[in-house]
Amino acid sequence: MLENLKKEVYLANMDLPKYGLVTFTWGNVSGIDRETGYFVIKPSGVEYEMLTSEDMVVMDLNGNKIEGKYNPSSDTLTHIELYKKYKEIGGIVHTHSKMAVAWAAAGRNIPNYNTTHSDYFYGDILCARSLTQEEIEENYEKNTGLVIIEILEKYNVNPMHNPGILCTNHGPFTWGKNAHEAVHNSVVLEEVAIMGFNAEMLNTNIQPAPSYIVNKHFMRKHGPNAYYGQR
Amino acid sequence: MLENLKKEVYLANMDLPKYGLVTFTWGNVSGIDRETGYFVIKPSGVEYEMLTSEDMVVMDLNGNKIEGKYNPSSDTLTHIELYKKYKEIGGIVHTHSKMAVAWAAAGRNIPNYNTTHSDYFYGDILCARSLTQEEIEENYEKNTGLVIIEILEKYNVNPMHNPGILCTNHGPFTWGKNAHEAVHNSVVLEEVAIMGFNAEMLNTNIQPAPSYIVNKHFMRKHGPNAYYGQR
Amino acid sequence: MLENLKKEVYLANMDLPKYGLVTFTWGNVSGIDRETGYFVIKPSGVEYEMLTSEDMVVMDLNGNKIEGKYNPSSDTLTHIELYKKYKEIGGIVHTHSKMAVAWAAAGRNIPNYNTTHSDYFYGDILCARSLTQEEIEENYEKNTGLVIIEILEKYNVNPMHNPGILCTNHGPFTWGKNAHEAVHNSVVLEEVAIMGFNAEMLNTNIQPAPSYIVNKHFMRKHGPNAYYGQR
Amino acid sequence: MLENLKKEVYLANMDLPKYGLVTFTWGNVSGIDRETGYFVIKPSGVEYEMLTSEDMVVMDLNGNKIEGKYNPSSDTLTHIELYKKYKEIGGIVHTHSKMAVAWAAAGRNIPNYNTTHSDYFYGDILCARSLTQEEIEENYEKNTGLVIIEILEKYNVNPMHNPGILCTNHGPFTWGKNAHEAVHNSVVLEEVAIMGFNAEMLNTNIQPAPSYIVNKHFMRKHGPNAYYGQR
Repeated sequence: MLENLKKEVYLANMDLPKYGLVTFTWGNVSGIDRETGYFVIKPSGVEYEMLTSEDMVVMDLNGNKIEGKYNPSSDTLTHIELYKKYKEIGGIVHTHSKMAVAWAAAGRNIPNYNTTHSDYFYGDILCARSLTQEEIEENYEKNTGLVIIEILEKYNVNPMHNPGILCTNHGPFTWGKNAHEAVHNSVVLEEVAIMGFNAEMLNTNIQPAPSYIVNKHFMRKHGPNAYYGQR
Repeated sequence: MLENLKKEVYLANMDLPKYGLVTFTWGNVSGIDRETGYFVIKPSGVEYEMLTSEDMVVMDLNGNKIEGKYNPSSDTLTHIELYKKYKEIGGIVHTHSKMAVAWAAAGRNIPNYNTTHSDYFYGDILCARSLTQEEIEENYEKNTGLVIIEILEKYNVNPMHNPGILCTNHGPFTWGKNAHEAVHNSVVLEEVAIMGFNAEMLNTNIQPAPSYIVNKHFMRKHGPNAYYGQR
Repeated sequence: MLENLKKEVYLANMDLPKYGLVTFTWGNVSGIDRETGYFVIKPSGVEYEMLTSEDMVVMDLNGNKIEGKYNPSSDTLTHIELYKKYKEIGGIVHTHSKMAVAWAAAGRNIPNYNTTHSDYFYGDILCARSLTQEEIEENYEKNTGLVIIEILEKYNVNPMHNPGILCTNHGPFTWGKNAHEAVHNSVVLEEVAIMGFNAEMLNTNIQPAPSYIVNKHFMRKHGPNAYYGQR
Repeated sequence: MLENLKKEVYLANMDLPKYGLVTFTWGNVSGIDRETGYFVIKPSGVEYEMLTSEDMVVMDLNGNKIEGKYNPSSDTLTHIELYKKYKEIGGIVHTHSKMAVAWAAAGRNIPNYNTTHSDYFYGDILCARSLTQEEIEENYEKNTGLVIIEILEKYNVNPMHNPGILCTNHGPFTWGKNAHEAVHNSVVLEEVAIMGFNAEMLNTNIQPAPSYIVNKHFMRKHGPNAYYGQR
């Protein structure tokens, strides 16, 4: 079932090592079919070189395995919370990409310092709080999804205008209208994390980009009158 | 028309991913034919792997498309201002190369700290000011060209002796006598940006290279009695 | 003799340049056969491109060469001390990977700042003290093994829960249940060293990850109820 | 003439881009034949991809071209001073490798912080002073050689125990018993420059490695009783 989606999610997973975002098995991509309500996700701990399209696991949004010989990614419950909350999300990615992990370990938002950031993320890339001991013991992966939603709600964030986030001490989650776009945003997040790091080293009094520059760049690419690219 | 120039501009564009200067579609190269006054530029938002020589767009200096099935780069109006002002420029490049973007986000000139810098850029690599909200709303891309010209004029810079610049919060533009040389200067700018970053980390009291070293290196390569390379 | 182990240790050695952990001949991997008490180790100073499975040297735990045309790695006596002390260790790796060497030169433990670290190393990655002049002159390589053991014992460390260490002014040693896993841990240590470096630059008041996050991540992968990966 | 040496110097030059030490044409390797007193050097400004063994230029120690269709490297006179002063030097390399250039721009010696450094360089990697305006105008490249010799003499350095140096605001020169070894030392210098940079960032009170560790590592590899590698 969902063979096309499996293929799509498989290819999106294979893009993670291609773009240098994962070492070993540290990452996973999923994509959802909103008609059936099923989503397809990478199996847990299987090496990318061994992975095939058939190895993808089909799950429902209650966490039941619908099809697949493997266990799904250990982060599956995080994906579920995001899919349940935001109907516009079609694909989700988690990685341990190096510079994003560093910002997460530092417990910091990535400020919007430049137009590369603004081309994809309207505001800062937020850093969700650490889970409490109780939240971790109760259900670590589900509650990781909930703290992501908590901070997005708190700041009234449109997830399609800020398609990614950091989890303190952990790393980044990104999303998009499908698995491919979610990976794309994962690459952008790591690049922006590197650029922001270097910019701070060069100027300890650095300020975020003015809002009208951010607005211009985001809107020329994603707004109603966007003119970047081909129509 | 201008098939040779299209080929040349196409190849120069393909050098950007080869040298690691662009991710996805974040960059563009153009080259001008001064006889016809037409220039050739990369189409907007088309992936490098899909690009062919035939996809290049031919434009005139009033911003009219002369030939091509695609929209030109969204930065086309910036290229036009530079071509109109400086007749000696034959090719222009814009990238979001990582370390140059960091200096731009920091809003800083790259000081001339070493002979690699001096071999290509006579002085500091200047950082043009941010556009005002009015300038952005009126015509972002055209006014980006104008603030580049503004700072080059202000410091009386010979653009062929300082073949590149940063735009605050955005990134680098470089140029040269043709598209190939403009890409070459783009590679140099990123390398010099990295070297300068590291040098500042190693010595917080660092000073620019003495003017007579800068002069020697620039002139042995570009001066009337240049002796670097083969004649 | 031990042809399978030689093959395994050879392949593990070849993974070091593949993962970018060694330059020239700066690294070595060994693996032990606990039945015979013999271990197999890379020859000293032989280039990786020239290496074959047959070049591996078979040694006993008294430092006698049992088989092989080459001298064993100059670090052989360090490997021996670790194999003698910890029966659960089946493979050992030494590299001069760049960021681990930097922490070692700084004489610092790598704090457990994030879940990537916690997935493999339960606590900080400890930095063993410098050898004294007497220890160096008496037997440098053997005493290197002994100071590693000294600090592991001092902090009551389970070596399988913290499968690697730094030696001050020198670099990392990692281990695992076999040569392959020891290399895996060597890759992790370098990644974690980079992530920790960057995290400290981003936040000068950074704190280690809370113990319950560390515990959760380590245990979901290595604990009795581990659920990461496939069973 | 000197066909074998040309081949050797050609191959050594081609190793520079292979090891990531040069961009474009920024580097050169030479090797000397002490019997004839002639040395072979890369032509100036010729791209590595175009280079052949036959393009190498044969020079004598008075700076006369003995054979070759191209002009020799613009740094030829620097090579000559080093060959004339130190009879034990058989090959010389100059690059603009990024981190070595940063230390040179910072005007700093690279302290001996770790055993990777000690395995090849007995002491600090010294940074020769800037040339004066008069020295530059009189003969830049020759005087570059002379300030290198000046600092080696001042600190009574054995050039075979410290096979490389930085020139302030410029970059590294390395040498060895032949061209191949000189390139090897150039790779080491860049690695050590990176390690030292990172170590300083991690510990602002960092101290050099104790002399007895330095001594041990250098001597186990290069001393009369060396036991690293195969005999």
